[in-house]
Amino acid sequence: MQISFALEKVNLQGVRLFAPASIANISCGFDVLGLCLENIGDIMEIRRSEVPGIQITSIKGQDLPLEAKKNVAGVAALALLEAHNSKLGFEIFIEKNIKPGSGIGSSAASAAGAVAGINYLLGTPYTNEALVPFAMEGERLACGSAHADNVAPALMGGFTLVRNTNPLDVCALPTPLELAATVIHPKIEVKTSDARAVLKQRVSLEKAIQQWANVGALVSSLYEEDYDLLSRSLVDEIVEPSRAILIPHFAQLKSACKAAGALGSGISGSGPSVFALSKGMTAANEVAEAMKEVYTKTEIPFEIHVSPVKQTGVSFLEDLA
Amino acid sequence: MQISFALEKVNLQGVRLFAPASIANISCGFDVLGLCLENIGDIMEIRRSEVPGIQITSIKGQDLPLEAKKNVAGVAALALLEAHNSKLGFEIFIEKNIKPGSGIGSSAASAAGAVAGINYLLGTPYTNEALVPFAMEGERLACGSAHADNVAPALMGGFTLVRNTNPLDVCALPTPLELAATVIHPKIEVKTSDARAVLKQRVSLEKAIQQWANVGALVSSLYEEDYDLLSRSLVDEIVEPSRAILIPHFAQLKSACKAAGALGSGISGSGPSVFALSKGMTAANEVAEAMKEVYTKTEIPFEIHVSPVKQTGVSFLEDLA
Repeated sequence: MQISFALEKVNLQGVRLFAPASIANISCGFDVLGLCLENIGDIMEIRRSEVPGIQITSIKGQDLPLEAKKNVAGVAALALLEAHNSKLGFEIFIEKNIKPGSGIGSSAASAAGAVAGINYLLGTPYTNEALVPFAMEGERLACGSAHADNVAPALMGGFTLVRNTNPLDVCALPTPLELAATVIHPKIEVKTSDARAVLKQRVSLEKAIQQWANVGALVSSLYEEDYDLLSRSLVDEIVEPSRAILIPHFAQLKSACKAAGALGSGISGSGPSVFALSKGMTAANEVAEAMKEVYTKTEIPFEIHVSPVKQTGVSFLEDLA
Repeated sequence: MQISFALEKVNLQGVRLFAPASIANISCGFDVLGLCLENIGDIMEIRRSEVPGIQITSIKGQDLPLEAKKNVAGVAALALLEAHNSKLGFEIFIEKNIKPGSGIGSSAASAAGAVAGINYLLGTPYTNEALVPFAMEGERLACGSAHADNVAPALMGGFTLVRNTNPLDVCALPTPLELAATVIHPKIEVKTSDARAVLKQRVSLEKAIQQWANVGALVSSLYEEDYDLLSRSLVDEIVEPSRAILIPHFAQLKSACKAAGALGSGISGSGPSVFALSKGMTAANEVAEAMKEVYTKTEIPFEIHVSPVKQTGVSFLEDLA
């Protein structure tokens, strides 16, 4: 049964897929927690090619390098082909809807989509979890370190916890069905290098203890579907206070989210996007209105996304003949 | 039904109970995680008295203060009576099997037993979780701070996570049925003040991140009954390296536990006891042999306990006429 499925996909010429955006860090879960978004993501098409290796045929919506070794999708795909010892060739087309530098896993989506699509066409030799290290190579190109906190949720869906990156150890966490995210993207540039530079390399033991208490409670809240506990756990007194200065009107956004009924809010990835989590899409839309009200008073252009947490990672939309 | 049960207990003269020992900290879960032990604990008898308030009638096995306000069980019981606005009186007898200062929650057991027993005789007006703050008053007397990481598991059983102490926020975590603990108590004194003094008040962000990744993974492993993940998560690179110097032959103990097949090991509470967790009592007994081998080569007297993790807290053994 598994073999016939594999052979069937091997005869396919290509696949069209949705590569989801993701939120990394998630308050107390700095550097380890991530979640997958349903309504925001890139569309990609992966097609077999007579030419071995990877060719990025075109990228719509953004000006990004087409040379495979300089493109996150290309690098991730090449890592997969090398591990699979494959002499096959693939073409990648990307409709880039997630803006690079927005802080919702733009590079991770491209990398995850590339490896998930090729894996599909190879007859699914790898699990989604096993694809994470290949996608991490894309992250290494994009930001200099092969982190997994965006590619893990983009591939595995829901909430993920990266216990360790070397060797890789990722936990797929259950995700309450009603959980929804609101993301505001202020259109300013926050350089990852700046976001790193403001971090204090030593932190108080007392606050670190509070942080790991919150991470433990947050994981429990996901299993228990306890939205109140989730809300109480969505606190970050270590990284957020340092990084808040990089995001205009951050304190007002947080207050507005809370007043609008959000379970919690924080910086998405290394910013500038700010996320809030809510119970249900209605609540998430109310939070969006509250965020909008804060930012329309400013001169800063912005966009807002509202999305359920996506239970699965990359979605395959259509087999291509 | 509940009312008749309550009345029935109100007519009881007393109760004999088992107040369990507990392990706090549990590697990465410093200051927040704790677990309850099945085979080690105090026996207590709580009886109604004509005299309002609390009288400690006698303590067998240890030389501890009988004056209620100077005794952890007395202080905890008085906190409960005050909150309950009760003019009733109770006598407490303690058969103290857990050695004070051993690092397995001796004071917590007395405090938990006292409040659980009185609550039982009052007709159970409080849940086990609601009893935690009263028992914490005993801890305040015993060590100067009203911490909950031993009293929470002693009252609630299994694994507990204290997300916050003020206001109190405790999560009851599921506990895999086969999980068993081995505890070696080297009969030396480690002063809590020394154990506190060796702690570094600032820690590296990198290690703190690793710690909260492990706490999150450990909580997930309990829900998933994933003993391998539990084992990988039982790591503490923050507190253990500082405190290890207080415990003779700590490194050898850890190596011996690992070689004998333990899932992980660490300092119990603030020491001097060292615990290991294993899958199954057979494995836990093998770990006990390995610990014994390390310590019989030394001049230091010791005792070793082997116990399943207790799924429930204080156990009521017998109603007293």
